[in-house]
Parts: sequence; C-alpha cells; structure tokens
Amino acid sequence: ENILEAEPIVYRQITVPQHGGKEYCTEENIVVLSIPYHEPAKTLQSVSGLTGVTVLKEVESAGVCCRASVCLLTTFNGNSQLTPKNVHQRPTVALLCGPHVQGAQGISCGRHLANHEVHVILFLPNFVKMLESITNELTLFGKTDGKQVSSVKDLPDTPVDLVINCLDCHENAFLRDQQWYRAAVDWANQNRAPVLSIDPPMSAQEQAVDAKWSLSLGLPLPLAEGAGRLYLCDIGIPRQVFHEVGINYHSPFGCKFVIPLHST
Amino acid sequence: ENILEAEPIVYRQITVPQHGGKEYCTEENIVVLSIPYHEPAKTLQSVSGLTGVTVLKEVESAGVCCRASVCLLTTFNGNSQLTPKNVHQRPTVALLCGPHVQGAQGISCGRHLANHEVHVILFLPNFVKMLESITNELTLFGKTDGKQVSSVKDLPDTPVDLVINCLDCHENAFLRDQQWYRAAVDWANQNRAPVLSIDPPMSAQEQAVDAKWSLSLGLPLPLAEGAGRLYLCDIGIPRQVFHEVGINYHSPFGCKFVIPLHST
Repeated sequence: ENILEAEPIVYRQITVPQHGGKEYCTEENIVVLSIPYHEPAKTLQSVSGLTGVTVLKEVESAGVCCRASVCLLTTFNGNSQLTPKNVHQRPTVALLCGPHVQGAQGISCGRHLANHEVHVILFLPNFVKMLESITNELTLFGKTDGKQVSSVKDLPDTPVDLVINCLDCHENAFLRDQQWYRAAVDWANQNRAPVLSIDPPMSAQEQAVDAKWSLSLGLPLPLAEGAGRLYLCDIGIPRQVFHEVGINYHSPFGCKFVIPLHST
Repeated sequence: ENILEAEPIVYRQITVPQHGGKEYCTEENIVVLSIPYHEPAKTLQSVSGLTGVTVLKEVESAGVCCRASVCLLTTFNGNSQLTPKNVHQRPTVALLCGPHVQGAQGISCGRHLANHEVHVILFLPNFVKMLESITNELTLFGKTDGKQVSSVKDLPDTPVDLVINCLDCHENAFLRDQQWYRAAVDWANQNRAPVLSIDPPMSAQEQAVDAKWSLSLGLPLPLAEGAGRLYLCDIGIPRQVFHEVGINYHSPFGCKFVIPLHST
C-alpha cells in the first residue's frame, strides 16, 4: 500500500502581540509561544484590581502545581521515594529562595512538599524587611517539619536528592552580585543533586545554576539552554486576563496542570 | 507448595483524639480516620494567626485540587472531553454554590475548570452582603468565560455533563429551609447529570442531593451513603496544625493530591 505521509498537524491556538523569540510545542502539537516580558502574572494583579489577593492566590497555586511537578519529575527518574508507606526513607530537598515573589512561590512549594513527607531544608537570606508574601509563607512553612537556614554553611555537605532554585527574580538582576546569592549558587553547583528551577527569568546572561528542569508559570519566557528541560505549569490565570494584554489564549493543558514543552 | 495467606498489613499512621465513627482505608491500606467536627480547616486559621491569608490559600488550593479531581473522575468514566485540541466540544458543568466558604471553594474550582476550557455555569443566590472570600472569587471568576446566574430558572433545562454541589456548609443547617436552596436541590435532582459534592457536611439528616462522588478536604467527615464514592483531597495543611488539635498525622497521599477512600 502507498501511504502518503502527512505533515503532523500543528495547532496554533495561542497568539501573542509581541513574540519572545522562541516557539515551543506540546506533546499534542500545540504551539506555545514565548513572551518577552514577565507577564501575565503582573497583569493578573493589575486588571483584577485585587493585588494582595491575587499575589496570595498565585503563590499558592504555583506552590501546589510545583509540588505536584516535583513529584512527577522525580518519578520520571524512576527513583521516587515518595510512597505513603515509606516515611522512614524520606527524600531530602534543598530549597534556595531569594527575597521576592519567586522566593515566596518556592516556600509555598516547600510547604506542600513537606506535607507530603519530603524533608525540606529552606535557605533564605536574612533581611530586616521582608515582603509580606514571604512572611506569610514563612509562617505557614514554620508549621511543617521543614527546616529553615539563613546561611549556606548550614546546608548539607553531602548531595541532597533535589535542589530547587528560586534565587532569581524577574526585576532585580543586581541581586546576583550579593554575597548570599553567590554563596548559594556555589553551593548548588558543588552539590551533585539535580536542579529544578522554578519560574526562572529570561537570561541575557547565563543561568547562574544549570538546571536539569525548569518550570515556567502560565506562559514560557525564552529561556537559555542552561534552563534544562522545560515544563509549563498552569497557575489558573483566566483567559480574559491574557486577553487584556493582547494574548489570545486557549489552554494547552487539557486535564493536566503541568506539561512538557519542546523547542521547535 | 503451601502458602500461608497472610492478612494484608494495615498502616495506622493517623490517630485522632475524637473518632468520627467511620474508618476509611486507602488503596495502599493506610487507615484514614474520620473526625466528628469540621476541622482542621478552621484550626489552620486560628493556630496560624493568619485568618484572611489562610482562608484565601485554603480556598485556592481547594480550587486547584478539586479542578484536578473533576478531571480525574470524569476520565475514570471514560468520557473525558477535556483534550486541549477539542475546544469545540467543551463539557458543561453546572456549579451550585451557597454563600459560604464552601461556596467560595466551589467558585475557585469553577475558575480553574473554566481555564481548562470547561463551560461552567455558576449558580449563586443573590445576597446583599457577601463574604469577602466569595466576592474575591467572583471577581476572578468574572475574568473567565464562565457564566453566572442567580436564579435556578436560568440553569439549563437539558442534562449537563456534571453537577458540582457546594450548596451546604458545615455551620448553618438552616440554609436548607431557604427558597433558593430548595429550588437548586430540586433542579439538581431533576437534571440527570452525575453529581460531585465538594466538602459536604456530615449529615444527621439525608444528603439533599445524592452524589456520585464526594470530595473531602484534609481529613474525612463521617459521611452518609448518599455521599457516593469518597475521595480525599490534599489542601496543604501542615502536620503541626493537625498536631495542635491532637491529630497525629502522616500524609496518606504519597505523590498524589486526591486519593479514593473505602469504608472498612
């Protein structure tokens, strides 16, 4: 029989007013465009008029989704220790957070991981004044069995099971020059654990910590190679919020809350 | 060969100070005890001292988890229409909410469903003064393609794909005597769609709407037969919060965020 091999159909159901320069594709051949700015998270706040509420909600749904993603990714590796009967062989996760919303998302993820019997060690540098979203998360994290340290010296000397990197934020690249940042980066690069970056910024420069996986939230930014394999998390941004910044959006998630993206 | 058939090992890693009268078991043979009061949700608020924050977070994580559960349950049925390429055959969900935190959880779930291309029709009765958690959720729900109605007359005459029941709350049983409640219950019982109840109260009386599935949040209440098949959702309550109300808790979830429970 002669079978004409057709080109795979590609679905373009997301359009953006300003292209981020990279095009990604889901396993279902849906094209997901990158955007060149840290939207729509900020937009969700401004268009809803519920700034405090939406930061909290975004941080919480990011935390829930990232927790689930961590489980999914470490299961992919075939070495998941997260079975409910196995409370005496708990995996150890080192969670590196900076003093910004990305850090708050990380702490929320850490709380959800700790609730699932993961041994979480949170590194957060000491600052006199913290963002409210950080202090809220810290209060709740304090109710888990997770441990908090403010010095890299108190992080484990031996390899952990996973490093979660939430050191960067989208606005203040100058954080990278601070002593705590460089110490945490050095620690991560010396520990032999695989690294998951949550909501990493797009990088004119290199990623300071090479990641095995990166989770983008909502829509991807154009990420550099050092970001590793890219996954997209659904953090519950309504379609009209996308629409108000000119993005025509149909969910690429189907039933899932995290999907792998491939460069095209 | 003679093989002695051993009793299956049962894991008792959750203990409660006051038993709710029903014992459930997970697929991994972990015993999950019911509790006779609407904890630990309320406790989380009081022990953390972050009332507003934790209500928001709880509502959001309940919304995320319930959205995921809906997808999971309807997939169980083999008739999931929720594939990302199938935007023109969207399932319709009628979401029935009362004016309380359970209703707010439902609206959050509705927003996440609408974000996943489900056609959501929200019924919420008109009240002059609404809870802040309800008005916050309504603002965000208003950014989706979901539709809101305040009269049962505006609900579909034909069977929908799923009814989500968030009409009841744990405190005010007198709501059941109100006209809007009885009208919504009658509508649900006449529509031939399967019903999912979210966070249903324990019932001295019968369930007003018989459910095919019920989702309990955190720990189960002792539910009556009309609650259908019971699932437990993880809404991210830290272990120490359980501990502060005398509950010794190890997560029964493993990597999952929703698990089926069986009566023992």
